[in-house]
Amino acid sequence: MISVAIDAMGGDFGCEPIINGVVDALQERKFNAFLVGDEAQIKSFIPQDQGFEKYITYVAASEVFEMKEGATDALKRKESSIFKAVDLVKDGTCKAVVSAGHSGATMSLATLRIGRLKGILRPAIATLMPNSIGGRTLVLDVGAYVDCKPENLFQFAIMGEAYAKEIMGLNAPRIGLLSNGEEDSKGNEVTKETFHMLKKMQNFIGNVEGNQIFDGSVDVVVCDGFIGNIMLKSSEGVASAIGKLIKNETKKSPIAIAGSILMKRVFKIIKKSTDYDEYGGAPLLGVKECVIISHGKSTPKAVKNAIFQALKFADSKINSAIESEISSNEQK
Amino acid sequence: MISVAIDAMGGDFGCEPIINGVVDALQERKFNAFLVGDEAQIKSFIPQDQGFEKYITYVAASEVFEMKEGATDALKRKESSIFKAVDLVKDGTCKAVVSAGHSGATMSLATLRIGRLKGILRPAIATLMPNSIGGRTLVLDVGAYVDCKPENLFQFAIMGEAYAKEIMGLNAPRIGLLSNGEEDSKGNEVTKETFHMLKKMQNFIGNVEGNQIFDGSVDVVVCDGFIGNIMLKSSEGVASAIGKLIKNETKKSPIAIAGSILMKRVFKIIKKSTDYDEYGGAPLLGVKECVIISHGKSTPKAVKNAIFQALKFADSKINSAIESEISSNEQK
Repeated sequence: MISVAIDAMGGDFGCEPIINGVVDALQERKFNAFLVGDEAQIKSFIPQDQGFEKYITYVAASEVFEMKEGATDALKRKESSIFKAVDLVKDGTCKAVVSAGHSGATMSLATLRIGRLKGILRPAIATLMPNSIGGRTLVLDVGAYVDCKPENLFQFAIMGEAYAKEIMGLNAPRIGLLSNGEEDSKGNEVTKETFHMLKKMQNFIGNVEGNQIFDGSVDVVVCDGFIGNIMLKSSEGVASAIGKLIKNETKKSPIAIAGSILMKRVFKIIKKSTDYDEYGGAPLLGVKECVIISHGKSTPKAVKNAIFQALKFADSKINSAIESEISSNEQK
Repeated sequence: MISVAIDAMGGDFGCEPIINGVVDALQERKFNAFLVGDEAQIKSFIPQDQGFEKYITYVAASEVFEMKEGATDALKRKESSIFKAVDLVKDGTCKAVVSAGHSGATMSLATLRIGRLKGILRPAIATLMPNSIGGRTLVLDVGAYVDCKPENLFQFAIMGEAYAKEIMGLNAPRIGLLSNGEEDSKGNEVTKETFHMLKKMQNFIGNVEGNQIFDGSVDVVVCDGFIGNIMLKSSEGVASAIGKLIKNETKKSPIAIAGSILMKRVFKIIKKSTDYDEYGGAPLLGVKECVIISHGKSTPKAVKNAIFQALKFADSKINSAIESEISSNEQK
């Protein structure tokens, strides 16, 4: 059975939504949950005498690494729940860690304590974006590192391809480089150089534009963490603005309100298909074990799905696939 | 009366939508339209004996600069409609030029033939994005130049502020720097340095995230052309994906179809408020006269609104405002 370390304290709303998510996950699948934090607090949210306890191990951590702290301090905070959760993976107790805490701290600790895969220069945060044909597009990096070099972006492509094959089950994922135009000549200095490196990948389809992330014409989109973050936040902003405009305009007319009631099911489906909670977290690719970074505002559903992602990742061959691709490219 | 040069041939669909847009514009406002291209073709789309002719001057151009050509060749193509249209501004015949042709060519010609404003290192394309509170957010640069230096981004902020004051009528426009987080410490190498330069601007509100473009919390957003293009295309992609998902899900149920009929007015308003045609073109800021770059697929409505933008720009003091701000900053 796979053991997953869970930072029970790091989220914006304390341990309640995290533990509720863990309980929901245990109701659907069996795994060993290592819950790191204040045992008394954590226990108060676990239904007693329902058989959950045998899957749970409590690991005491007296401190919480707060959102306002600088990621570089994470290494010194040895009593924090995130430090202890990551170290359960480092020492081999667990195969994966899930944290809704400070994402910079999680990244630093994962990189420095668990370590990078052989040959990987920089890990990347990968996220799944919903597209208009009902599928998902993997985008990386969405925030681990700004100011990437072409070698970094090239490695992101290799890691993204491995994820698409091993986790998403795609045979020949289409890899695209995010740019300001589809033509080969488009790009900035960094992406132009990256383009030439990516040409040797069989599944590279060339430069892709921002809209292609959402139209199903590409499976893996590569960019640096600065651009990935801006793209991600802008997309969320557009979706939220459209939602608000529809709501505000509907409120003005009884006819439109009636219409919106009849369309309720449609809006529910749209909400579900664009819902972050459906996947619950973003894997940090390029480190030696599975690290899932969840949103500070994660709901129990998001936590549950982040744990399911961790189980799938820990059960896959993605990391050996990444290492072998990186090493075969080094030999070229 | 203001004279506007219009590249009648450069759009994706030939001169018909362009000329229809010119005629629609002339029906609402009076200006001198200099139509550059094939006179016989252009004339065939102008209703005769309705008084339009007295506002129209035909300027012959035997060639069209095609979308597939490289922007750097634009200077050599002296018989092309875009070259001749830009030169009508250069020689003082017209106060503004509108083109739905090759945007790279328009930029090159504007920069090299009309020239940059005193002190401006690089012009920028500015675009208005709709936000959820029914207003517009100005974003620049959205594609003129990739790989910007901090000095360029600083100047974009000055140009954006001038546009917001002189054209949008805002007294104290809030200027933001597009970044991967709101905190002062966030950013990549270029934006971190830009941040320090922008701090001396009174209306600078700091780093802004992608979603803020769409929530009305900032008036002018500064970024380089690579990122601006990706943000723009991603946003369009999300809006289009949501539209498609709603349409596809609605089709599956008669109840939802009935609902969508009742909500028709709401969807129409949303479409209108997110409609590119409503402003019709993006001004190239930082050149000595007014240059409006329109989409190759511009409808007559987009062309009409691009012309109205040109009239407003040509009638404003924006360029002297930019020059005086740039010069006062140089003295600091």
